Amino acid sequence: MPDIALPFSIAEYQDRLVKTRAAMVRANIDVLVVTDPANMSWLTGYDGWSFYVHQAVIVLPEGEPLWWGRPMDGVGARMTSYLAPESIHSYPDHYVQSATIHPYQLMAVLLRQYGHSSARIGLEMDNYYFTAKCFETLRLELPDAQFSDATALVNWQRAVKSEQELIYMRRAARIVEQMHQRIRDTAEDGLPKSTLIAEIYDASLRGADGFGGDYPSIVPLTPSGTDAAAAHLTWDDRPLRRGEGTFFEIAGCYRRYHCPMSRTIYLGEPPADMLRAGEAVLEGLADGLEVARPGNTCGEVADAFFAVLAKHGIEKNSRTGYAVGISYPPDWGERTMSLRPGDQSILEPNMTFHFMPGLWGDDWGFEVSETIRITEDGPAECLADVGRELIIKP
Amino acid sequence: MPDIALPFSIAEYQDRLVKTRAAMVRANIDVLVVTDPANMSWLTGYDGWSFYVHQAVIVLPEGEPLWWGRPMDGVGARMTSYLAPESIHSYPDHYVQSATIHPYQLMAVLLRQYGHSSARIGLEMDNYYFTAKCFETLRLELPDAQFSDATALVNWQRAVKSEQELIYMRRAARIVEQMHQRIRDTAEDGLPKSTLIAEIYDASLRGADGFGGDYPSIVPLTPSGTDAAAAHLTWDDRPLRRGEGTFFEIAGCYRRYHCPMSRTIYLGEPPADMLRAGEAVLEGLADGLEVARPGNTCGEVADAFFAVLAKHGIEKNSRTGYAVGISYPPDWGERTMSLRPGDQSILEPNMTFHFMPGLWGDDWGFEVSETIRITEDGPAECLADVGRELIIKP
Repeated sequence: MPDIALPFSIAEYQDRLVKTRAAMVRANIDVLVVTDPANMSWLTGYDGWSFYVHQAVIVLPEGEPLWWGRPMDGVGARMTSYLAPESIHSYPDHYVQSATIHPYQLMAVLLRQYGHSSARIGLEMDNYYFTAKCFETLRLELPDAQFSDATALVNWQRAVKSEQELIYMRRAARIVEQMHQRIRDTAEDGLPKSTLIAEIYDASLRGADGFGGDYPSIVPLTPSGTDAAAAHLTWDDRPLRRGEGTFFEIAGCYRRYHCPMSRTIYLGEPPADMLRAGEAVLEGLADGLEVARPGNTCGEVADAFFAVLAKHGIEKNSRTGYAVGISYPPDWGERTMSLRPGDQSILEPNMTFHFMPGLWGDDWGFEVSETIRITEDGPAECLADVGRELIIKP
Repeated sequence: MPDIALPFSIAEYQDRLVKTRAAMVRANIDVLVVTDPANMSWLTGYDGWSFYVHQAVIVLPEGEPLWWGRPMDGVGARMTSYLAPESIHSYPDHYVQSATIHPYQLMAVLLRQYGHSSARIGLEMDNYYFTAKCFETLRLELPDAQFSDATALVNWQRAVKSEQELIYMRRAARIVEQMHQRIRDTAEDGLPKSTLIAEIYDASLRGADGFGGDYPSIVPLTPSGTDAAAAHLTWDDRPLRRGEGTFFEIAGCYRRYHCPMSRTIYLGEPPADMLRAGEAVLEGLADGLEVARPGNTCGEVADAFFAVLAKHGIEKNSRTGYAVGISYPPDWGERTMSLRPGDQSILEPNMTFHFMPGLWGDDWGFEVSETIRITEDGPAECLADVGRELIIKP
């Protein structure tokens, strides 16, 4: 094992591998090809911004996982993962973004070398960065293999957080508290949005309690005024204006672990329907937190929230939260459980969610959200501590 | 057309559509499904951080393109694209990240509605965000369609930049100049890397000449010391140390247009082999710029650079640059032309590249790069103006 500072103990990585292999057995999979960067990192420690080229972690029936990617990123794998050098493989650099050859031709060669050309191979068919071309290439090159869809197989193993993971998420929580404080302190009429974003990044990176921040997997989503009716717009350099609301969907991040949190600010006198919606959301959030206990389902949490909205005559069609933890762009969600009606996933202690009751009117948006931990026997714990009220500034 | 501030004129979007359709005809494609966010934006103006869910722009044989995605992002499409409301389609929110249903089932319904269930459909098989599952679903749902690989078809249309695109890239160039100045001003022994990153983001977002910055598609890559031998590591909160070099691969960004630029700094007395390598790289860069003229090929630029390295006895196996312009995470490259030996792409005026001659030793990395524009008849123009020397601070 290389002499590097891993974010988790070797025992924890081994435990993760055992859990993953058990899930592979249940899914009749001999070999798992993992392309989701968060899954790659969770399994091996690998951390780098290299997911824009083809790369993977390959879990074999026994032994260490293999890391596979571009040569210069193999160097990064030796520096950030617990894997032995002989477990790190790479394809020649001229395979990068070539129109005539594809790296997965060499992934097939590698699997053949390890004796798995006719194995039952699980693929993350709908995770990020596993393109249609990767699958076509692999199928062509390994005609005797049996492929099956292992989308989110590893993601599900990540649902219950370890003590060390929670330490990182709590550090991220301290960071997101600082970020929201900075917004309260600096947002004002006339301030260019891009300058406010600079303040938010500054708070997120300088961090809290002596721990500097990592990059969140989504940039700040901060639309103002009528733009706030759209959920996922980013920013430009136009100034904040009196008579406009702005929501801030942001996250603190520490060693790739996220604590998202949204709050909304209004410069001037907020419209009555926005205030009413805000009150309903806060009430629904409180009811949802009560229901978010071990043994209840994700769907029941959503039901509790939507019941309050319905009582207030408000209709909302989108989901109201999702599992969170370690992540890489383009998403900080785990893409397993959703807090939405009908989701039958049963809550367990130390699962973590972004409970995200956003409401978008025709010409405004209101978001107030919490990152929560399912406790042993009580209502959910909010990891960060920031007042939930609509922030009104002159 | 909605009353919104588009980054480009309608005439320019129409010109892009004409070019794209001509390429579709050459490729025997009736309908093109575009999932690369940069291509979606280039074709329609659409701008939002929504590429973590399935979405696409669909180019039909005639008429406006269609935007297709999640309902709340359809709102964003109405606010940021030139498309008429009737060209914007969405799938119900409960299709998001479901294990049992897939949005592309409804993409098939949409294509059927428009009369294209047996069309020749081009797919970006190896672009970002078009997963293996998308393809499998579409193939299953549209058994009479003929699918072909249109990876990078739109990307290639983006190669030669318009006047307005160059205006945005020059604004990004002013921004990256500020970012490098900030590094020179603040990097010092003992400064936590995460705090230095805060300074870099601050400069990039506050912008230059009154234009606030957008988010670059790659976060700052800034490894120090032996970590700098790996190309794509990000940062943590450990301090900069005397006796270590750090390279900074960063980009200014304005309205999604990038001007990447790398420089290297050393605190203390740099090792002799790093200094020698640095001199060779600067000489090779200068020779490459001379060759980067209309009519020459990308490969010839790389050859000129590598010839200098060879003269100095330095071996390098990775490519030394790529086309750049508009982009979204995870990459700021265009993924068409590469500056590497054998690339036969012929340079034309107003093509733009990140000429990126990085060298990585066993225990150091040295990067000095330029974003260049191919001129009408002379050597390439560097868009940003920052001294290239290794920055040495005490």
